[in-house]
Amino acid sequence: MKRVVISLGGSIISMEKLNLEFMEEFSRMLGNIKGYDGFGIVVGGGKLARTYISDLRKYNVNDNILDEIGINATRINALAMTTFLDDVNSKIPTTVNDAAEMMHDYRYVVMGGTEPGHTTDTVAMLFAERINADVMINGTSVDGVYTEDPRKNRNAKKIDRMNYDDAIKLSIENSIGAGSNVFMDITSLSIAKRSGIKIFVINGLKIDEYINILYNGTCNGTIIE
Amino acid sequence: MKRVVISLGGSIISMEKLNLEFMEEFSRMLGNIKGYDGFGIVVGGGKLARTYISDLRKYNVNDNILDEIGINATRINALAMTTFLDDVNSKIPTTVNDAAEMMHDYRYVVMGGTEPGHTTDTVAMLFAERINADVMINGTSVDGVYTEDPRKNRNAKKIDRMNYDDAIKLSIENSIGAGSNVFMDITSLSIAKRSGIKIFVINGLKIDEYINILYNGTCNGTIIE
Amino acid sequence: MKRVVISLGGSIISMEKLNLEFMEEFSRMLGNIKGYDGFGIVVGGGKLARTYISDLRKYNVNDNILDEIGINATRINALAMTTFLDDVNSKIPTTVNDAAEMMHDYRYVVMGGTEPGHTTDTVAMLFAERINADVMINGTSVDGVYTEDPRKNRNAKKIDRMNYDDAIKLSIENSIGAGSNVFMDITSLSIAKRSGIKIFVINGLKIDEYINILYNGTCNGTIIE
Amino acid sequence: MKRVVISLGGSIISMEKLNLEFMEEFSRMLGNIKGYDGFGIVVGGGKLARTYISDLRKYNVNDNILDEIGINATRINALAMTTFLDDVNSKIPTTVNDAAEMMHDYRYVVMGGTEPGHTTDTVAMLFAERINADVMINGTSVDGVYTEDPRKNRNAKKIDRMNYDDAIKLSIENSIGAGSNVFMDITSLSIAKRSGIKIFVINGLKIDEYINILYNGTCNGTIIE
Amino acid sequence: MKRVVISLGGSIISMEKLNLEFMEEFSRMLGNIKGYDGFGIVVGGGKLARTYISDLRKYNVNDNILDEIGINATRINALAMTTFLDDVNSKIPTTVNDAAEMMHDYRYVVMGGTEPGHTTDTVAMLFAERINADVMINGTSVDGVYTEDPRKNRNAKKIDRMNYDDAIKLSIENSIGAGSNVFMDITSLSIAKRSGIKIFVINGLKIDEYINILYNGTCNGTIIE
Amino acid sequence: MKRVVISLGGSIISMEKLNLEFMEEFSRMLGNIKGYDGFGIVVGGGKLARTYISDLRKYNVNDNILDEIGINATRINALAMTTFLDDVNSKIPTTVNDAAEMMHDYRYVVMGGTEPGHTTDTVAMLFAERINADVMINGTSVDGVYTEDPRKNRNAKKIDRMNYDDAIKLSIENSIGAGSNVFMDITSLSIAKRSGIKIFVINGLKIDEYINILYNGTCNGTIIE
Repeated sequence: MKRVVISLGGSIISMEKLNLEFMEEFSRMLGNIKGYDGFGIVVGGGKLARTYISDLRKYNVNDNILDEIGINATRINALAMTTFLDDVNSKIPTTVNDAAEMMHDYRYVVMGGTEPGHTTDTVAMLFAERINADVMINGTSVDGVYTEDPRKNRNAKKIDRMNYDDAIKLSIENSIGAGSNVFMDITSLSIAKRSGIKIFVINGLKIDEYINILYNGTCNGTIIE
Repeated sequence: MKRVVISLGGSIISMEKLNLEFMEEFSRMLGNIKGYDGFGIVVGGGKLARTYISDLRKYNVNDNILDEIGINATRINALAMTTFLDDVNSKIPTTVNDAAEMMHDYRYVVMGGTEPGHTTDTVAMLFAERINADVMINGTSVDGVYTEDPRKNRNAKKIDRMNYDDAIKLSIENSIGAGSNVFMDITSLSIAKRSGIKIFVINGLKIDEYINILYNGTCNGTIIE
Repeated sequence: MKRVVISLGGSIISMEKLNLEFMEEFSRMLGNIKGYDGFGIVVGGGKLARTYISDLRKYNVNDNILDEIGINATRINALAMTTFLDDVNSKIPTTVNDAAEMMHDYRYVVMGGTEPGHTTDTVAMLFAERINADVMINGTSVDGVYTEDPRKNRNAKKIDRMNYDDAIKLSIENSIGAGSNVFMDITSLSIAKRSGIKIFVINGLKIDEYINILYNGTCNGTIIE
Repeated sequence: MKRVVISLGGSIISMEKLNLEFMEEFSRMLGNIKGYDGFGIVVGGGKLARTYISDLRKYNVNDNILDEIGINATRINALAMTTFLDDVNSKIPTTVNDAAEMMHDYRYVVMGGTEPGHTTDTVAMLFAERINADVMINGTSVDGVYTEDPRKNRNAKKIDRMNYDDAIKLSIENSIGAGSNVFMDITSLSIAKRSGIKIFVINGLKIDEYINILYNGTCNGTIIE
Repeated sequence: MKRVVISLGGSIISMEKLNLEFMEEFSRMLGNIKGYDGFGIVVGGGKLARTYISDLRKYNVNDNILDEIGINATRINALAMTTFLDDVNSKIPTTVNDAAEMMHDYRYVVMGGTEPGHTTDTVAMLFAERINADVMINGTSVDGVYTEDPRKNRNAKKIDRMNYDDAIKLSIENSIGAGSNVFMDITSLSIAKRSGIKIFVINGLKIDEYINILYNGTCNGTIIE
Repeated sequence: MKRVVISLGGSIISMEKLNLEFMEEFSRMLGNIKGYDGFGIVVGGGKLARTYISDLRKYNVNDNILDEIGINATRINALAMTTFLDDVNSKIPTTVNDAAEMMHDYRYVVMGGTEPGHTTDTVAMLFAERINADVMINGTSVDGVYTEDPRKNRNAKKIDRMNYDDAIKLSIENSIGAGSNVFMDITSLSIAKRSGIKIFVINGLKIDEYINILYNGTCNGTIIE
């Protein structure tokens, strides 16, 4: 069984509004891919959720409930995503366990977050691990992992290839630093490491990147292995 | 057991953004009300959901999935609402049955929609019926039921009091007419009729209206009985 | 995917007792139909449920619980129906969402009602909408839609073909009138309209009608489109 | 916590039709009982279910599905029973585990069967065991346990008091004998034995019997301990 | 559909520790079997569970909770078992109903116990009955059914073939006797009888026995029919 | 509402066998504590689970399923723990959401893990956050947080008090270092930080420590705030 899990960050799937053009194009691309048995697709929350959450935060709302709201938003995005795919689940699974069960039935299984404390990247990695996928593609708003935040430091350099330990170290450094912009959280990287899942961090809006990865195993972003 | 169910239309709870000021004020008001054993609160979807849905509609998306997305949006609003109340459920029930079970445990049970084909007004009425509430308050964006659409016809008159059959007839006329702006759907009114639940249709943003109804059984809107 | 949903009214499936002869014959007929990918079958409650409910009504029992009892009865009938079919679900789904998920696995998915406030006709229509069925067959105890109640007025005429709006108008007139015998409820017709699902209202006991519809798209009942 | 579980056999709760007079009287009686913290009530299936099942059996239907149908019927009866009680669950639990959880919330928890292979007597006993009830009252259509089937042998004698082992032996003898009329199944008796739950087998229609047991610990039926 | 259910006793699957060698060998054997559409596999609890339970028993713990703990242990064993099989469920079903639904999707469905009061042999038999399996293989730690306990009486003789009634009688005699070592409980045998499921009681560790049964319908243990 | 969540590490609750003496003593202690409205108790997996998992790992079993097995083991331990407490849940919740809902009903809510990728410490912290607990007590096998691993370095010093950022840094250093013995994972510490939950890391076997914390807010371990 050749399966891949793709994490679509909220920043590319839901900007000012739902990025339906992308969803449609992305779905058409996947529909044409040959040689794979299944795709897990985990979508993030995006602008809408962040607006809701930042408004509520002013009222000192419990962070756990804010997370819960964010998770519900990812499920709405997941539902929207399903409408562009054939042979796809019609109910959004709320655990990786249920998603794995569904993977047996469909070519695509789309889901959002599961519970507070897990990013959608971590959900995607747990999903990949559970269904024995060798590859996890992380579609983000940046075109790969950089030595420093490219939006802040012009000397930041994109890294073509790194191993799990270096990625974890970099993720930790980012977490501690002032900017909270971490390319991938430590938990998701640790899971990738323990199960040897190859990660492709790419600009998620570039359709060609997915095709390159799925057919040639290469990309213009960063490979973590 | 003296219980009331309140339906808060999406148009008052979630306008351009979540109407948190209202939610807070409304919750504070309820917290001060004496003499009641429980409040069921059903919240609608609002602007956000409508934007999502109208965007997706351009892609010929299945209406059922659009409804499902709308229902998910109501649940997000319901989660937000719970953060302003004490002694309230922390999980949003997805059936009236579960909500009724929760009503035994909390002073407030907040929920959104349940399944495609039911408006949140209908959910509120089924909830009222199930927990033997005598009264259902419908907080809308208009200050009562009018003989015609007040935004279109200057001669439209607000109705102070009407019986179930007249309300159902008016709802039907509105449904058939060009404007899809129906004050309450036929199903919710039919349930009210069969179980004799008194309905107060009010401008949901006016906090005084709730107080008046809960203490005096009167309002400046419309009473259907 | 070519799918059809069939609503089998309680009046034909469960008369004095379960109409097992019909269930068997109906199932054999479906088993021989070629060219379809799946059949959703929604069964009603019938005599037994009505007896239970009318007995309880004398004790002023909450209508919501009576509906719940009625829904449980439809699920028993649905279970019975499954025993005559091959390649069918063994657990009766309690939401249209779950039923749609099952439709991926089986040639037949049989279910009953879902929650109070929805007729089984509405459940059938929501099911049809969700699985993108073009056609919904409504098997009733009458042989089509009549201009008036044929049991009361000898001049009532069967309508061969009508559009959604006329059907909705007629349904409304029937609802208001004294006789509560409505051929199909307004909610189910509205869903059909919004998604363009063609409805065949037929005498559900006549096996030939189903065959005619499935192969030729014609019937001796009424077509609403 | 002083709790009791009562098993109401289908033969007393649902004869030709639902025995609503009994349900009402029984509920009123329980409402007046002082000194108890909670009552578990497990209701059987009755005439209706048996008719359905015997009709289906003629079609060689899978016994497991017949059991499932019978269980659904007990849940309908359980729903009906709840309508006569205050402070009672509104959703019928489908496992003893869920019922035990509900027992914390209500004075009465009403349920039916759980899964094929368990009689409602066994469900009642498991429920008693789980909530640490000392007593299980078995309301049957006979007025106690007899040395032989009283309907067949005029010399059959009612047993006032017997120990678990003797009860189990008698149950086994009955099971083997031609008549399938066993006063209580072996599984339920074995559970009673391992947890020391005292059983009162009584004519379930006699309201005085319950009062006697609950206040005085005596009855005109049979005590198994 | 040719399906078989196999009950793997805890005593063979989990001795001092999980018997992984056996699990692997057993799984490899099943993977090579041709001519079957599906295998239900029900695994018992084993040594670990018994140690937990006997420790807790000293504290007078509720037997029902001990059963629940035992059931959880069977589910852990079931999860472990799934790791050796391809085309198998990834979520352990908690009811026979869910397991039957899964049987439609996989070649293997592995499960443990369901609820207190049911042995895993009974679960296996209910599973067999539900999915219309003709055969149930009971893999135990003894090589068949004996006239008496072979560990206590040297004259005990293995029975090659017996009918349901004799098996039930022997099970009853064993239950009553001092030794609690019953080859199969009465409930599971009664279900086999009512649905005509042929039982093979074998030494579950002997891989050849399974092959013999599946291809030739014979074994060195005991056939109950 | 004054609520506390206690995380009981597997290493103290389940050593060679279940540490029932401790469970009993711990429960008696909690039963005597005055002035609190509720206790969340999250128990770890312990020796048994680790043995199972390390055996399976030799067979290259999917890490996700191993996590799942570990989680099932924590639920068994949680079930065992419930047997020593009064006013406690009888069903082990599988999400923090469900646990929060139960907290409304009981003085004690006991649970284990929720899903792969979350330690039980993280579950405990999410639970604390959700129910607005100010304090999380982490009962471990060491008597506090040390500057280095005390079992490896004699100069390691116990830290009395540290802030969240220092704790996170130390946790990161431990994670990177050779020894995988991290006092608390980064995710749980981050949640504590964002919601200002005070952490007490103590030798979980010392009953006095809990009493000291609950009454005086002090301990002989480490306070993170």
